[in-house]
Amino acid sequence: MTPALPTPSGTLFGVALNYRGLLDSRLAEFGDKPYLKPPQRPVLFIKTPNTRNGQEGSVVAPAGERLQPGPALGVVIGRRASRVQPADALDHIAGYLVVNEFSLPEDSYYRPAVKAKCRDGFCALGDQLVPRDAVAAVEDLTLRLLVNGEVRQENTTANWVRGLPQLLAEITEFMTLDVGDVLITGTPEGRVDVVPGDRVEVVIDGIGRLANTVVAEVRP
Amino acid sequence: MTPALPTPSGTLFGVALNYRGLLDSRLAEFGDKPYLKPPQRPVLFIKTPNTRNGQEGSVVAPAGERLQPGPALGVVIGRRASRVQPADALDHIAGYLVVNEFSLPEDSYYRPAVKAKCRDGFCALGDQLVPRDAVAAVEDLTLRLLVNGEVRQENTTANWVRGLPQLLAEITEFMTLDVGDVLITGTPEGRVDVVPGDRVEVVIDGIGRLANTVVAEVRP
Repeated sequence: MTPALPTPSGTLFGVALNYRGLLDSRLAEFGDKPYLKPPQRPVLFIKTPNTRNGQEGSVVAPAGERLQPGPALGVVIGRRASRVQPADALDHIAGYLVVNEFSLPEDSYYRPAVKAKCRDGFCALGDQLVPRDAVAAVEDLTLRLLVNGEVRQENTTANWVRGLPQLLAEITEFMTLDVGDVLITGTPEGRVDVVPGDRVEVVIDGIGRLANTVVAEVRP
Repeated sequence: MTPALPTPSGTLFGVALNYRGLLDSRLAEFGDKPYLKPPQRPVLFIKTPNTRNGQEGSVVAPAGERLQPGPALGVVIGRRASRVQPADALDHIAGYLVVNEFSLPEDSYYRPAVKAKCRDGFCALGDQLVPRDAVAAVEDLTLRLLVNGEVRQENTTANWVRGLPQLLAEITEFMTLDVGDVLITGTPEGRVDVVPGDRVEVVIDGIGRLANTVVAEVRP
């Protein structure tokens, strides 16, 4: 049975490098120091509560920095998940929503990229929650990023490196996910820069549309 | 005026590499790829809500992994802090508490080390909150880690790389800290391994004592 849809008010967990094209583009770098091999487990990051933003919320472009949207499918946890088996993983999912996970470009791998990921308002969540049962094929959804109405990124969850059963099994092996937590399942390669005045939309077929406007930073 | 002491129920922010001896021991590595230079800004990480633990709480040693305590002073935010100047930073601090920030050893710099830092119960917070005004010299406190009554680490906040005014100014430059958030100001070099059955205590002079017991993981 699908758990009831909770308010997505818990911890926002991001999964990095979960699109095949993005991971492939970084493989050479991961052969070098200090990694020496590609990630063996999901590479996670946290979007802290100060990053929360919503439908039609303004996103502040930090002065002197580049700003990049990150279209992603968000998975809302509906039943506490600890050491779930892949076969049972979907039972813990209540539903889905559209996420725009804004970031500064990540040129360095200083661990962890809190400064790039956790600026105020850098994680917009859509206002439509779609129950799990209403989505026939979560690993076959088209995501699009539009900037001022023009499609700038298009990809599909069919290109995920890890699907949801594997992701949830590998994450909950060491960490309990709670009701209302959101797993941001990754953003595809080809991130683009946006600037103040830009209208940014993430559209995921069957899930929804999330619109935000980029505004300039005002310093006192 | 010192803000009233809130419940430390907000986000737990950790600062890595904030003891001089620890940073110095890593400098050679930071000269190599992909860093090429030492960190220019505070290196932050998040202890997610599932890591919360308390006085006398059990800490589970993950099977097949090494477990290391991390003695640290926790700073409780009492007034929302965004872009504070160093001179005003202390006004946002309500008080202090003892923290034991458990971690797996970090041999690699895959960004971010959520898997090492965010296991269930990996962040014990002391049960005594000490108001800011009751601490005469926060940058001259002795920290000790005791394992089964024996001192295994001893250091002083005088060895911080960044003091609180600079830390708060640099962090709040890009991220708002909220009332009840806790800034974990770093753990010194010389981390030790602990095993199931060990009694682990962090003692910070003038702040308090935090005791935990390490237990073995039970897998179904």
